[in-house]
Amino acid sequence: MSEPTKTSSGSLAERVAAGEIRALARAISLVENRDPAGDRLVAELFPQTGNARVVGLTGPPGVGKSTLIASICTKLRADDRDIGVLSIDPSSPFTKGAVLGDRIRLSDHFLDPRVFIRSMATRGSLGGMAEAALQAALLMDAAGKDDVLLETVGVGQGEIDIVDHADTVVLALMPGSGDSVQALKAGVMEIPDVIVVNKSDHPLADTMMREIRSVLSLGPSRSWRVPVLKTEAAKDEGIEALVEALAEHRSHIEREGSLSERRGRNLRAEVLGIAVARLRRDLERRSQENPDWAGLLDQVVARQIDPASAARQLLDQTIEDD
Amino acid sequence: MSEPTKTSSGSLAERVAAGEIRALARAISLVENRDPAGDRLVAELFPQTGNARVVGLTGPPGVGKSTLIASICTKLRADDRDIGVLSIDPSSPFTKGAVLGDRIRLSDHFLDPRVFIRSMATRGSLGGMAEAALQAALLMDAAGKDDVLLETVGVGQGEIDIVDHADTVVLALMPGSGDSVQALKAGVMEIPDVIVVNKSDHPLADTMMREIRSVLSLGPSRSWRVPVLKTEAAKDEGIEALVEALAEHRSHIEREGSLSERRGRNLRAEVLGIAVARLRRDLERRSQENPDWAGLLDQVVARQIDPASAARQLLDQTIEDD
Repeated sequence: MSEPTKTSSGSLAERVAAGEIRALARAISLVENRDPAGDRLVAELFPQTGNARVVGLTGPPGVGKSTLIASICTKLRADDRDIGVLSIDPSSPFTKGAVLGDRIRLSDHFLDPRVFIRSMATRGSLGGMAEAALQAALLMDAAGKDDVLLETVGVGQGEIDIVDHADTVVLALMPGSGDSVQALKAGVMEIPDVIVVNKSDHPLADTMMREIRSVLSLGPSRSWRVPVLKTEAAKDEGIEALVEALAEHRSHIEREGSLSERRGRNLRAEVLGIAVARLRRDLERRSQENPDWAGLLDQVVARQIDPASAARQLLDQTIEDD
Repeated sequence: MSEPTKTSSGSLAERVAAGEIRALARAISLVENRDPAGDRLVAELFPQTGNARVVGLTGPPGVGKSTLIASICTKLRADDRDIGVLSIDPSSPFTKGAVLGDRIRLSDHFLDPRVFIRSMATRGSLGGMAEAALQAALLMDAAGKDDVLLETVGVGQGEIDIVDHADTVVLALMPGSGDSVQALKAGVMEIPDVIVVNKSDHPLADTMMREIRSVLSLGPSRSWRVPVLKTEAAKDEGIEALVEALAEHRSHIEREGSLSERRGRNLRAEVLGIAVARLRRDLERRSQENPDWAGLLDQVVARQIDPASAARQLLDQTIEDD
C-alpha cells in the first residue's frame, strides 16, 4: 500500500516543506487513506510546524461557513498570504449533495495556486477522520501556509475535535440559530474567540446580535472580550472587520503568552484523542472478527452478562492478546 | 468505599428488584460514585432488566424538556404506570443554576412514590457520567418501572450516548430551533422516532412544524412515519397525542421485530462505549501520574515528536505496563 516518497526533485517530505502543491496534495491523500507512509511523513515534518496561524470556523449547517471562508480567503490573499483550507464534511447518506453544494463559493479560489483547498468527508468513524484532518492541518502548516483555516460543523466530534486544534475559534451563527445561543447560554457549548452572525441582511440579524451579547455578558469576564460581528459573506460585507478581529485575537494571545499555553493543551489533548480513537478502532475491529467477542456480545443481548462486565472482559482480553 | 449491600429485609439487589425506592436510590448513588459495589449490583440485576419501556427525550437547552417529562409523567400516572425519570444534566461552571431551574416542573411529582426522579450532573468526563446513567437506567428497569424516561440535551455525548439506550427517541424542538432543523436536514443529526414542537403558543410554531415536515419528506421513506406533534407542555396541551405516539411507536417496533434488533445494537454499542470510556479514563490518569508520559507530552509540545507517534508510544507503554 505504501506510496513511493521519492521523486527526482527530493523526498516527498522535502517537497512538502518546499511548499510544492502536488506534494502537499499527495501527502494529505496518504494521511486520509491511513497509509503508514502518511504517519511517517507527518512525523518527519512535525518539527517544521507551528508557524501557521490556525483558525477554526465552526457553526451549525447552513449558516454559510464555506462562503465565509471564501470571503476570508479573498481578504487574506489581498495581503499576499498563503492559505490552506480544510473543510471537514460530516456527510451522511441522507443528503450528501446539499452539504457539498454549500461549498461552491470556494471555487473562486480553485485557480489560485496560493490557496490550497481540501475537503475531507467522514468515512465511517468521525474519530478516524478527525485524526486524518489533524495530520492534514499539520502538513499544510509544514508546507509553509501562513494561514490554515479549518471548517467544520459545530456538533460533538467524538474523541478529537479538530477545531480545538485552532489558535483562534470562530463560531458562525445566523438569525434563527436559537439552539446554538441556548447552548452557549446553558454552558453546553464552549464560548469561542470570535462570533459572527452571517446573513446580516436578515431582518432578525440585529436581534440575534443582541441575544448573543446578552448571553456573553452573563459569563465570567475574561481578558479577551469576544467580538460579535455581523457579516454578509455572499456580498463580502463585514469580512474586513472579521479578518481584523482574527488578527487582534492572535496578537492578544501572543501578547498574553496564552498562544503557547493553548497549543500545549491542544497537543496534549490530541495525543490522548488519537490514542483513544485508535483503541476504539482496534476494539471495534476485534469485536467483529473475534468469535469469542461475538459470543460475549450475544450473551449481553441475552441479558446474561451486563454491559460493564462484558466491557471489562473485552479489555482484559485485548491486553492478553497483545 | 464499598457500602454494605445487606439489610434486615434482604440484599440491596433483592430490595431493588422488589421496587423499594430507598434501595433504588442507594443503588444509583453507588453507580454514580463509581463504587465497585454498584457494578456488582448491576451485574446481579441485569438478567431482570429489559421489561421497561425506555423513552429518550433529547433536544437543545431551553425547549422545555423537563416540563415535557413532567406532563408525560402526569399522563402515564393516570394509566397507573410506575415511572423512572433520569435527567442528565450537562452542567457547567458557567450557568449551573439556569439548567437546574428548568427542572422545577418535575417537582409536581416529588411526593408521588411511583415516580422515581433522579438528576445526574456531569462530573468531569461526560463519558464516565454516561456510563453511570446507563447503569442507573438498568437499575430503574430492574426495579420494575414500567417506563424509564431519559432526558438529555441533544449534543454529542462522547463515547456513549445515553439516548441511544432508548427504545423510542423523542426530539423536542421549539420555534427558533433553526440549527437543529438544519442539522436534521444536513444529516448530521439522526432522525428520531417522534418530533415534538414545544411552546406551540409561539406565533412561529406552525412554521417550524412545516419546516420539520419538509425536512422529513426529503429523507428516505421508512416503515415508521415520524410524527411531528405540537405541544404546550406548561399547559399540558398536546401531551395525550405525544403519549399515544410513544405507545404507537412501541407497538410498531414490537410488531416489526425491530425492538429486539434495536436493543441488540444498543447493547453492543454500549459494551464498546464503556470499554473505550474506561480506556480513556485510564490513559488520562496514567498520563497525569506517569513522569515518562509527562515527558513524552512535553516533547510533543516542543515539536520533537508528532502527536500520532506519541499516541503510539503511549499505547505501547500501556500494554507493557499491564
